Amino acid sequence: MRELQDRILKEGKYLGGGILKVDSFINHQVDPVLMNHCGLEFARRFKDLGATKVLTAEISGIAPALTTALHLQVPVVYARKQKPITMPDQVYLTLTPSHTKGRTVELIVSPEYLAGGEKVLIIDDFLATGATIQGLVRLAQAAGANVVGIGALIEKTFEGGRGVLSYLGVPIESLAIITAMEGDQIYFQEGA
Amino acid sequence: MRELQDRILKEGKYLGGGILKVDSFINHQVDPVLMNHCGLEFARRFKDLGATKVLTAEISGIAPALTTALHLQVPVVYARKQKPITMPDQVYLTLTPSHTKGRTVELIVSPEYLAGGEKVLIIDDFLATGATIQGLVRLAQAAGANVVGIGALIEKTFEGGRGVLSYLGVPIESLAIITAMEGDQIYFQEGA
Repeated sequence: MRELQDRILKEGKYLGGGILKVDSFINHQVDPVLMNHCGLEFARRFKDLGATKVLTAEISGIAPALTTALHLQVPVVYARKQKPITMPDQVYLTLTPSHTKGRTVELIVSPEYLAGGEKVLIIDDFLATGATIQGLVRLAQAAGANVVGIGALIEKTFEGGRGVLSYLGVPIESLAIITAMEGDQIYFQEGA
Repeated sequence: MRELQDRILKEGKYLGGGILKVDSFINHQVDPVLMNHCGLEFARRFKDLGATKVLTAEISGIAPALTTALHLQVPVVYARKQKPITMPDQVYLTLTPSHTKGRTVELIVSPEYLAGGEKVLIIDDFLATGATIQGLVRLAQAAGANVVGIGALIEKTFEGGRGVLSYLGVPIESLAIITAMEGDQIYFQEGA
């Protein structure tokens, strides 16, 4: 998606260690117009899957998941990293390593909002190692739901997440695909 | 706002202790169509303030803040509760008590995205004691920005937040105003 790729080139900063800073339009400040366009594009690419729910992980997945869900006209559930007091005692919980936090985090979904037979579209900001998305897949499977597609705003191919998730046999769509980062240079796979 | 009030009556659950559970459409599962309508309504009410930025707190403020920012066509910044590795060492940080977490949490904003002279519209899911919103006000003031308005999806008048924030002299708008909760009953102030 040209608009996202151009924005990454303009404002993204490679911090080393595989970390791309996109805090000015995705991860701290959010450009709602860009997010809406990304949601529209995800909805277009996934429109034939019959998704009944969008699933993401707090925090940075919420914006693109919300706009995707808006255009697909289905609810979005964001997995919590801490169990709020409003959640029942019995929950779906999985552990996942957080690349940017340097530790293991919990992902928690209430059985109230993820049911057997649902068709789940997973949307997140990054597809890197695929660890967070695999955690979301495990939560969906624990609920007896079917994952029908996976979408990420930005994929870093060199971290191998797409290969890790390929066993699912579902469409994986990324709106910007980064093949390498080096110094000030960010290299994209064309046609994403 | 009738649509939000009706949804609270239909799906909201009073858990006691002043806690209203709205996890099926705001705080865990989100109805994106409803959130979009709420954002449109905030944008309508605040359209003459000249806001240059929407400010909220992760996590539950993100959805209504994003849709409001979309309709106002300005960026949204969500204050982080943990400093990510992409953030500079020098930040604006304030402490605020969390009612639902039972402890003090940090609210952190990078100076990169909140500048002196900006006109800040604060949007959050709840206006209860006003503590979180006061934390956001302190962050804006630390940056030399001006708070021009405050919006909440749901206000609980009996926790007094509106009075606490009145010294700011800015418009405070809530889309559903709850005056009391008792057993299965939720009482609204009409005309919100």
